[in-house]
Amino acid sequence: MRTIEEYIRLAEKAVGSIKLPKRPAGLYEPITYGLSNGGKRLRPALLLAACEAAGKDCTAALSQAAAIEMFHNFTLLHDDVMDNADLRRGKPTVCRKWDNNTAILSGDTMLTLATQLLVEGVAPDKAARLLDIFNRAAIGVYEGQQYDMEFESRNDVTEEEYIDMIRLKTSVLLGCAAQLGAEIGDAEEQQGMALYGFAMNLGIAFQLQDDWLDVYGDPAVFGKATGGDIMNNKKTFLLIKAMELAEGNDKKNLQYWLDIKDADPEKKISAVTAIYDSLGIGDICQKSVEKHNAEALRCLGKSGLTAEAAGFFEEFDRMVMNRKK
Amino acid sequence: MRTIEEYIRLAEKAVGSIKLPKRPAGLYEPITYGLSNGGKRLRPALLLAACEAAGKDCTAALSQAAAIEMFHNFTLLHDDVMDNADLRRGKPTVCRKWDNNTAILSGDTMLTLATQLLVEGVAPDKAARLLDIFNRAAIGVYEGQQYDMEFESRNDVTEEEYIDMIRLKTSVLLGCAAQLGAEIGDAEEQQGMALYGFAMNLGIAFQLQDDWLDVYGDPAVFGKATGGDIMNNKKTFLLIKAMELAEGNDKKNLQYWLDIKDADPEKKISAVTAIYDSLGIGDICQKSVEKHNAEALRCLGKSGLTAEAAGFFEEFDRMVMNRKK
Repeated sequence: MRTIEEYIRLAEKAVGSIKLPKRPAGLYEPITYGLSNGGKRLRPALLLAACEAAGKDCTAALSQAAAIEMFHNFTLLHDDVMDNADLRRGKPTVCRKWDNNTAILSGDTMLTLATQLLVEGVAPDKAARLLDIFNRAAIGVYEGQQYDMEFESRNDVTEEEYIDMIRLKTSVLLGCAAQLGAEIGDAEEQQGMALYGFAMNLGIAFQLQDDWLDVYGDPAVFGKATGGDIMNNKKTFLLIKAMELAEGNDKKNLQYWLDIKDADPEKKISAVTAIYDSLGIGDICQKSVEKHNAEALRCLGKSGLTAEAAGFFEEFDRMVMNRKK
Repeated sequence: MRTIEEYIRLAEKAVGSIKLPKRPAGLYEPITYGLSNGGKRLRPALLLAACEAAGKDCTAALSQAAAIEMFHNFTLLHDDVMDNADLRRGKPTVCRKWDNNTAILSGDTMLTLATQLLVEGVAPDKAARLLDIFNRAAIGVYEGQQYDMEFESRNDVTEEEYIDMIRLKTSVLLGCAAQLGAEIGDAEEQQGMALYGFAMNLGIAFQLQDDWLDVYGDPAVFGKATGGDIMNNKKTFLLIKAMELAEGNDKKNLQYWLDIKDADPEKKISAVTAIYDSLGIGDICQKSVEKHNAEALRCLGKSGLTAEAAGFFEEFDRMVMNRKK
């Protein structure tokens, strides 16, 4: 096994090596722009590491690493249109720098390019299995995005529904990346499933942690001001759980802050945080983070990997859970 | 070989047999709605016929027939968002009946579902070839749509560029349908390419004919009033050729009618048609229709098909070229 940084470097190189046609520039330039948005390349790095953990040199998986990152960035282009987002990682989104139509059409192109990259240079029987894993994850991502949009206008989302949504929207793709890598590395199916379970549960833990950090994170470590989710009434684990548990004055208060327009940020953030505190929401969220992270490590324990490879993924887990946003 | 109507009926049945999950309904109901929009199922019918022409019962190709129709309808969902279209075949578009976000996300799902259907029940080596044919056509469709959008704001589009655009945007998918059918029918590669050439050139002839009919068609036969393209300043073959050939007064006149807002429809249509007439644009367009249709039949002649199969595709050609819009 190499270091995490080395896999990230190789993933970056794989993404940078993608050959795109020059014309029509209006179709392909937004793709290059979208791909160079400074993402951390965690998915392709995970794919490469899983391939090597299974015992094969990860240079066999560079095209698939590029594929998973291409797919991820396709979802970002379309999500930004759906969310009407101005910025991504501090740079104008494709739908702003160009327009919505460009983001839609270049995104479509990225999905097909991802499918091409996925099967490039792979024997047909292997390609069929990679495609099956990839397509099922893609369907999961769309379903998750659909639930996420639906939840915005619902007030009765349950914790279970919320976790299933983040599982689909963000975690199955991490699981898919690990499983694809294992498959390319000729791992036994059971090992591929174990790595899928590891990455998928880590993804859920990561997303829940993200929800928690936006309220309770140290801005100095977190890298940005907290409270954004509260200001936007974002249906995070914290808000959903608070809506479930709040009664009496807490409930009235919470609804007041959800309904108010143009609230003073400092007041709203501190009031909603106080409600969360009185209900113990932060701890409940942390328990769920720990539960899913433990499940990730339990899957890893069942993977039958070498001690070196298992140690690598434990370190990967720590890096993900301790990152700044 | 069966009759064209029989292939269309089988294609309709293949599309109707697609199994979709029930939930989330907000994702899958628009897909069912989009697929039941009353399309003529020409692409899947062509695929099934090509399979049988190659010598295999077309029931082997039902899933791929469904795939090509799913892909086609995915492009309609996204095109309607990009064109801000209210109606398709007299019914509200998905982006109107639901909203743009739904049309984007359900469309994305359709593209992945199409890829799944394409390889369903097919041996891996065959699946790899089908996927390669399909992905290359898909990229062509996106490039064609991009050129189409770019041409709307350009005044110097050449005839050659225009024909290349319609080749990519609409014709390669017809070629792809025929080639996929041939591939599933275990045709020699050369026969698959000949059928691709047939369907692709027929598609170009069809599109040019469509441009011509919108100005010169008999409304009684055509099924709708003519002149819509002229009213919308749509960059058709006719307008592009007229912009290339017009000089002096014709040129000034044409520009006048292109620039005028809220023109009286009757006056604008009759004035622009008169300019087309004085430049002989209708005949030039018909010559190009005939040229591409002849090329389609030339490809068919090189296909090495049985006389019965060749006769079928000649009839298919006549049906397409003589249809109402």
